[in-house]
Amino acid sequence: MSDSLHAAARLRIVLVGTQHPGNIGSAARAMKTMGLRGLVLVAPERFPHHDAVAMAAGAGDVLDSARVVPDLATAVADCRLVLGCTARSRRIALDELLPREAAARAVATAAAPAGTTAAVVFGRERTGLDNDELQLCHAAVTIPADPEYSSLNLAAAVQVLSYELRLAMLGPREALPAVPAPDGDVPASHAELEGFFAQLADTLDAIDFHKGRAPESALRKLRRIFLRAALDDRDVRLLRGVLADAQRMARLAAERGP
Amino acid sequence: MSDSLHAAARLRIVLVGTQHPGNIGSAARAMKTMGLRGLVLVAPERFPHHDAVAMAAGAGDVLDSARVVPDLATAVADCRLVLGCTARSRRIALDELLPREAAARAVATAAAPAGTTAAVVFGRERTGLDNDELQLCHAAVTIPADPEYSSLNLAAAVQVLSYELRLAMLGPREALPAVPAPDGDVPASHAELEGFFAQLADTLDAIDFHKGRAPESALRKLRRIFLRAALDDRDVRLLRGVLADAQRMARLAAERGP
Repeated sequence: MSDSLHAAARLRIVLVGTQHPGNIGSAARAMKTMGLRGLVLVAPERFPHHDAVAMAAGAGDVLDSARVVPDLATAVADCRLVLGCTARSRRIALDELLPREAAARAVATAAAPAGTTAAVVFGRERTGLDNDELQLCHAAVTIPADPEYSSLNLAAAVQVLSYELRLAMLGPREALPAVPAPDGDVPASHAELEGFFAQLADTLDAIDFHKGRAPESALRKLRRIFLRAALDDRDVRLLRGVLADAQRMARLAAERGP
Repeated sequence: MSDSLHAAARLRIVLVGTQHPGNIGSAARAMKTMGLRGLVLVAPERFPHHDAVAMAAGAGDVLDSARVVPDLATAVADCRLVLGCTARSRRIALDELLPREAAARAVATAAAPAGTTAAVVFGRERTGLDNDELQLCHAAVTIPADPEYSSLNLAAAVQVLSYELRLAMLGPREALPAVPAPDGDVPASHAELEGFFAQLADTLDAIDFHKGRAPESALRKLRRIFLRAALDDRDVRLLRGVLADAQRMARLAAERGP
């Protein structure tokens, strides 16, 4: 777990003029799932409200500690970085960042040794942020939605940005591990693999798989299959156990045969 | 706009046993904002439903074209890659991918020249996917939520995965290999793989591999081995031929038995 997770305390989500209290609750839940707690509400239409509590599910604590302020300037007065979420728009006189870039900048700001607060600001459900509010932002963040239908629900937009903030906090190691190998696996040694392939060849003979055909082609294809599977030592023991029982059946059939 | 955006037509979101129809509508909206249209509903508790329509907002067309099926096997029968969203869990006998890795694999699969359908599967709000359903998945996808509160709303999880799928479609095609096998062979369909696994289970019984032990554990391990091998349709025919001869020997041994 990365030190920069401590940056979470210096990351703030600001919701401006939210119309539906249920969206405030859903946003609080989205934040908490990504380890974020700092919520500021600018002039919400209705808050506190039971719809907010209902949609927050287990994130009621984020709602309880939410600060309510009259305007955006107050909400971000102590922030060194303010990023405003907007739909892509020609009229914005701000740098436009993708969520991943925005999250990297916000976490870099919040995680700095003399770290300072970074805010991501979300506007009203219908009308977003007005121009005066955008003027208070250092850059715009635009989720790369389908231009044909770009209307993300407010809480969905908060979820996407909170998710990118968490990945940025976790850092590249935790955020992008290689596909984890199952616990305790030891790759099969060359000798173990060859022993398995030899028993496979014997088994194919015992069950009369080739029926007169040359065995090389089938064996080559089967080798490729099992080599692609990157067998570990336990896999090899399991597969050899299956082959042993097939060989035993073939012996029984032969012994009992006419 | 990248060619791989055309992959959207081969990307499928599957919701299993959704309890609240409003979540189906929210999920449809989340999909459409990211350019996804292919929604399949497995045994939803209530659908169609006015709550779904209300939450879908402008994504009613995604709801209207949603396919409703009785079980997950039917929903993914034609899919070459099936990824199941789960909370991080030790008991899962599947590779665990982060959303970004999962999206890269899904888009690589769907955007391949001989592109094939990839599905991302989401379980029930409370209980997620059961073990039988996870067995139908080629890998698990886990959103790296805060372990202290990892309960994403269903539509929020769909939003995060749909967002990563869109980024993967917009971006250059990933280096991550699609599940399809090498040599440009046609990857085995989900139905072909399940047919093979069923015959494998029958064969283990016929050769008395289990000897009184419960078969689940061995079958699960063997599934993992062969799923890792990314079998193509010829591989499956070859392996089923081997199983057929082992079954034949077992029959002979039984017929000739004392």
